[in-house]
Amino acid sequence: MNQKIQAIQTWLNQNELDMALLTDYHTIAYLTGFESDPIERILVLAIYAQDEPLIFAPALEVEAVRQTGWSGRVTGYQDQEDGWALLATALSAPKAPLLHLAIEETQLTLTRAKALQHVLPQAHFDANITELIQNMRLHKSADEIEKMHQAGRDADIAFEAGFAALSAGTTELAVAAALEYDTKKRGIPGMSFDTLVQFGAHAANPHGATGNNILKPNEMALFDLGTIYDGYVSDATRTVAFQGVTDHQREVYQVTLEAQLAAQDQVKPGMTAGELDQIARDIITKAGYGEYFVHRLGHGLGSSVHEYPQIMGGSDLVLEPGMVFSIEPGIYIPGDMGVRIEDSVVLTENGADSFTHLSKDLRIID
Amino acid sequence: MNQKIQAIQTWLNQNELDMALLTDYHTIAYLTGFESDPIERILVLAIYAQDEPLIFAPALEVEAVRQTGWSGRVTGYQDQEDGWALLATALSAPKAPLLHLAIEETQLTLTRAKALQHVLPQAHFDANITELIQNMRLHKSADEIEKMHQAGRDADIAFEAGFAALSAGTTELAVAAALEYDTKKRGIPGMSFDTLVQFGAHAANPHGATGNNILKPNEMALFDLGTIYDGYVSDATRTVAFQGVTDHQREVYQVTLEAQLAAQDQVKPGMTAGELDQIARDIITKAGYGEYFVHRLGHGLGSSVHEYPQIMGGSDLVLEPGMVFSIEPGIYIPGDMGVRIEDSVVLTENGADSFTHLSKDLRIID
Repeated sequence: MNQKIQAIQTWLNQNELDMALLTDYHTIAYLTGFESDPIERILVLAIYAQDEPLIFAPALEVEAVRQTGWSGRVTGYQDQEDGWALLATALSAPKAPLLHLAIEETQLTLTRAKALQHVLPQAHFDANITELIQNMRLHKSADEIEKMHQAGRDADIAFEAGFAALSAGTTELAVAAALEYDTKKRGIPGMSFDTLVQFGAHAANPHGATGNNILKPNEMALFDLGTIYDGYVSDATRTVAFQGVTDHQREVYQVTLEAQLAAQDQVKPGMTAGELDQIARDIITKAGYGEYFVHRLGHGLGSSVHEYPQIMGGSDLVLEPGMVFSIEPGIYIPGDMGVRIEDSVVLTENGADSFTHLSKDLRIID
Repeated sequence: MNQKIQAIQTWLNQNELDMALLTDYHTIAYLTGFESDPIERILVLAIYAQDEPLIFAPALEVEAVRQTGWSGRVTGYQDQEDGWALLATALSAPKAPLLHLAIEETQLTLTRAKALQHVLPQAHFDANITELIQNMRLHKSADEIEKMHQAGRDADIAFEAGFAALSAGTTELAVAAALEYDTKKRGIPGMSFDTLVQFGAHAANPHGATGNNILKPNEMALFDLGTIYDGYVSDATRTVAFQGVTDHQREVYQVTLEAQLAAQDQVKPGMTAGELDQIARDIITKAGYGEYFVHRLGHGLGSSVHEYPQIMGGSDLVLEPGMVFSIEPGIYIPGDMGVRIEDSVVLTENGADSFTHLSKDLRIID
């Protein structure tokens, strides 16, 4: 069995727990290599303190589980069967006592917790394994980091495809479509999320969606995108000017850039996540734009685009080598404009090592 | 306030509840028109029995909430603030007693339930509102159905774009990229999920992902795709032959088609979801392929791709006019081939009305 699962078995034994019942498909992908969103179906990875682990999955996924090289047990169930009852049967097969269980409290819903308790009436859900998993995922291995470097190189290419698609009168959706098409044509396997393209005042909504807004000269265009390489993602943002830039736009851009560069240059092991957020926030606040920087500085990423930790004010998390996170300050002035600049980085003993390398100097696309 | 929210207020009053605390962003989109996945941030719609409703959202979403024309209260919080404490303050603002609450048990995680209980120590989570919401979403209005017809017409176009991209030596990813690009170029706003393209034996994995498999003559190509129109989705599947077809492939295809057509032709109000599943399953079983039809016949859809109900064996749900669901039998022979044929339909007094109209006769692409 692989090292990650062995580490969980050690933790179970240390904590006198009988089994970890994992239900978040991201966790299951991270621990086993089997990637599948079961949507409303049941997908469980059961790691026993003493026995061989089990994947309990929809029947239609059993073949895919085996194809990953999974060496543990795998049990399937059909849609029309009582999945929870069959899960209980499968879980009990090793005859190990199942009294003290660890679950993923951050993922398990009340309905599913009730269903589990119903079919495992003697079980106590004694422990929350979320923190252990988060800590495991937080410290990336050299192999994981290498995949993220490749994903970052792919993202650099995707940006260039997007910039090339800018022209007066085009729409955000058309640019995003051209960007993704061009990226996939080059053999880059996929995007890690729907590419966000926002023109002009629309970029003042930091979580708006790519829409039918039309590009006009002297507007800025914001691109937030990510790619996937062998299960690991990139996430980066660039904002460019189209055919010209006003003094006001240039000022907002430079303040954002200064904040981004300061955070990326100054981050080092031993600093807290809250302190890192403050470096960027202070620069934006001193420039008079503090009220327009309405989100945290960054977030963790790895096998998914948003994972632990959050880089935000108040966080006492001490940053350590091997942690991966985004650094993405932004200034969003409603009705006017928005700028965000983002690299995702891995922290090393010497500071941040970025996965993306595309220049962050203000670029004016003709 | 809109009729959906009024219906929930009526239900709260009938059940002597003070508030419904809605946390599933799909539910919030359905009830308010505000569409946003908050990922790990807090997004809550609070519907009071007696007071004006509240949306509690990340600060960066407040502007977008207002832009939807939301007439209730809206309160934002910053990432670095204690969102749960601020939520409790915002919820208590109308001075209404908050003792008896309804929550979405199918969506609320144990961690979030604990956080809520911590900041609302006097509240009892007395009721699960999931079933009420499911029932509301289950019966589509004429307006919703019209949007789904448009999404279906868009899906028909997307299939043709995909078929046109088939050529010997191309990959699944290249075909999916061309399909999506062509679809977006025609102004179709977006896909409702990543387009699934599978060639040959890869199609035997019904939940596999689009990959780098290369198309060869005499293979079949499976396309499972959906589009979005004004917040409503389509979902359909076609399987075509490439440059030729063997007798074996043709037989598997015809059995699947016969099962799909029988279910779609015979479905009518008053039948149960289990009975509908059985119509298709009997045909495939009698033809000797029963073991290869490893999933339910279909699932509900609407403002999301997978919603209540499930069309599967054992379900006693009585089908009624206005319900929308997919009819998608498949035969998956490991290592050999896979076929799935799917239309999504709305049930009327006279039977099924399909959103997609592309022919289901076996098509051989040259």
